[in-house]
Amino acid sequence: MTATIHQLGAARTPSLQPMLNLVAPEMNRVNAVILDRMQSEIPLIPELAGHLIAGGGKRMRPMLTLACARLLDYPGDRHHKLAAAVEFIHTATLLHDDVVDGSDMRRGKTAANLIFGNPAAVLVGDFLFSRSFELMVEDGSLKVLKILSNASAVIAEGEVNQLTAQRQISTSQEKYLDIIGSKTAALFAAACRIAAVVAERPEVDELALDAYGRNLGIAFQLVDDAIDYVSDGVTMGKDAGDDFRDGKVTLPVILAHSRGDVDEKHFWHNAMLGHRVSADDLAYATSLLRKYNAIDDTLERARHYGQRAIDALGPFPASAAKDALVEAVEFAIARAY
Amino acid sequence: MTATIHQLGAARTPSLQPMLNLVAPEMNRVNAVILDRMQSEIPLIPELAGHLIAGGGKRMRPMLTLACARLLDYPGDRHHKLAAAVEFIHTATLLHDDVVDGSDMRRGKTAANLIFGNPAAVLVGDFLFSRSFELMVEDGSLKVLKILSNASAVIAEGEVNQLTAQRQISTSQEKYLDIIGSKTAALFAAACRIAAVVAERPEVDELALDAYGRNLGIAFQLVDDAIDYVSDGVTMGKDAGDDFRDGKVTLPVILAHSRGDVDEKHFWHNAMLGHRVSADDLAYATSLLRKYNAIDDTLERARHYGQRAIDALGPFPASAAKDALVEAVEFAIARAY
Repeated sequence: MTATIHQLGAARTPSLQPMLNLVAPEMNRVNAVILDRMQSEIPLIPELAGHLIAGGGKRMRPMLTLACARLLDYPGDRHHKLAAAVEFIHTATLLHDDVVDGSDMRRGKTAANLIFGNPAAVLVGDFLFSRSFELMVEDGSLKVLKILSNASAVIAEGEVNQLTAQRQISTSQEKYLDIIGSKTAALFAAACRIAAVVAERPEVDELALDAYGRNLGIAFQLVDDAIDYVSDGVTMGKDAGDDFRDGKVTLPVILAHSRGDVDEKHFWHNAMLGHRVSADDLAYATSLLRKYNAIDDTLERARHYGQRAIDALGPFPASAAKDALVEAVEFAIARAY
Repeated sequence: MTATIHQLGAARTPSLQPMLNLVAPEMNRVNAVILDRMQSEIPLIPELAGHLIAGGGKRMRPMLTLACARLLDYPGDRHHKLAAAVEFIHTATLLHDDVVDGSDMRRGKTAANLIFGNPAAVLVGDFLFSRSFELMVEDGSLKVLKILSNASAVIAEGEVNQLTAQRQISTSQEKYLDIIGSKTAALFAAACRIAAVVAERPEVDELALDAYGRNLGIAFQLVDDAIDYVSDGVTMGKDAGDDFRDGKVTLPVILAHSRGDVDEKHFWHNAMLGHRVSADDLAYATSLLRKYNAIDDTLERARHYGQRAIDALGPFPASAAKDALVEAVEFAIARAY
């Protein structure tokens, strides 16, 4: 008998479909909780929340909670409420992010803050965040509460850190990794880890799922940051070059800057300060990213973290759930191609 | 032996000093928790949080937690962490409020969002909010978590409700009471109630302290809304007429509008829409408030809720703590005179 060796780079195009199929009936339950618990006597709250929540999105994080619970053969339903809580935290973060960034688009639609105004987006984000804690309290696990309240604080720290790094071309790759580890990977890690808590598995399983989620989250964000320079606005639901115009110093920029000559370094410096934001500037930036292999190398690093995510699943026996979790990693990376 | 009858309207000027004295040593402990737990490796977080937290404020809510615990002779120290959590929730709300309102001043200083920018104010608010839940989780009481997560959701609902009522002169006094019951009184109620939880008192005591805090909170906000039309900018740390210019339909306006003739109603309608915001307009508004006794009647209603707060303390035996809690109510109302 030979073991299945899960490795990135399989011939066929990876898909999220196996994971979607695996959790479809349970995701309906989670969606019902989400719809039920975003209600309020104040009509603006479900209106605004619904714009974003009903407005698509892959429900990646709650899906991970469900798939990880399936990996552990958890037979209960506590994780439905908790998966909804995770999605509420994510939605609150998106609402506040759009206010912070002054975004025009989110998931291919006009961003909520542009339709409903920044004040409403801030306050409804606060409501969803509070509601997520109410859901956790109803579940009653202090361990889950600890994991998710910590993740929330880490996310906010990561967002503030990103804000202070914005327009700073001197941002190091290490700081960039810190930022995405906090703002993106912390919630991926928590979403996976809580499945082990509700399934009452030993800490070693908690940590394995935490590592799976964390590495997947980092890979996911690295790919997002690469795609931002190659997107056509339809696939991503946002325009190519958003990060460039916002002066977000992501890994592709850090690599091209650090490998560039004096003039090129000067260009990146000015571009991140917002002095080079025309279509021509973006085209030049893209040519520099190509010249220094910055997109490919960013994706190579994404594959590194993707492989770590897959290897973190090593302790768990083969199953359809495991295959789906592996393919989710492959899918996250293949999005860029 | 005659019982002490606590009634509003005593001859001498009421003061917050007895309560400050009562809890001073414990408040030092709470302040130490606050300072310790607002730290972060991201320097902007303690900088911004410190601007607001160190920048004054009466620490009214954590002080209430401490005073209520003293009322119940609670001998432990769990409430220090929880009082800090309450203050973090309040601070997060203030930071987001200032972004929502576009405020210039807070506690007599330039508002944090004007110095650090709206994005930082939103994100540091999120951080403090998450941190408050981390503090509660460390304490480990699901009951406290339930009370405070519910209060947080209710506060956010109240803020959204207030946003939708803004500039709407048709706002009813009942809706106004709903709004201040949520955005202000819910946290006062929770701050008091959790003292009974940590002291492991029966639910009847929890509810009594909840009622004390809730009625005090309503009285407090009514007085604030009255003061907004008589403030001199020094006493309140904000300018007179802020609510008028922001189109906030508070009880003084609701009363003057509902008692006014057609022309006066028309004036209020336009004023709340932001078409009458000059100094002359404010002076005319103030004359209408006087003509219809709107400020005095607002304060009369504050006294009504104040008396309900005091009467809610009925079940508790006489003590220095009880006297201090009673005088805090008297002080809250006397601020207006």
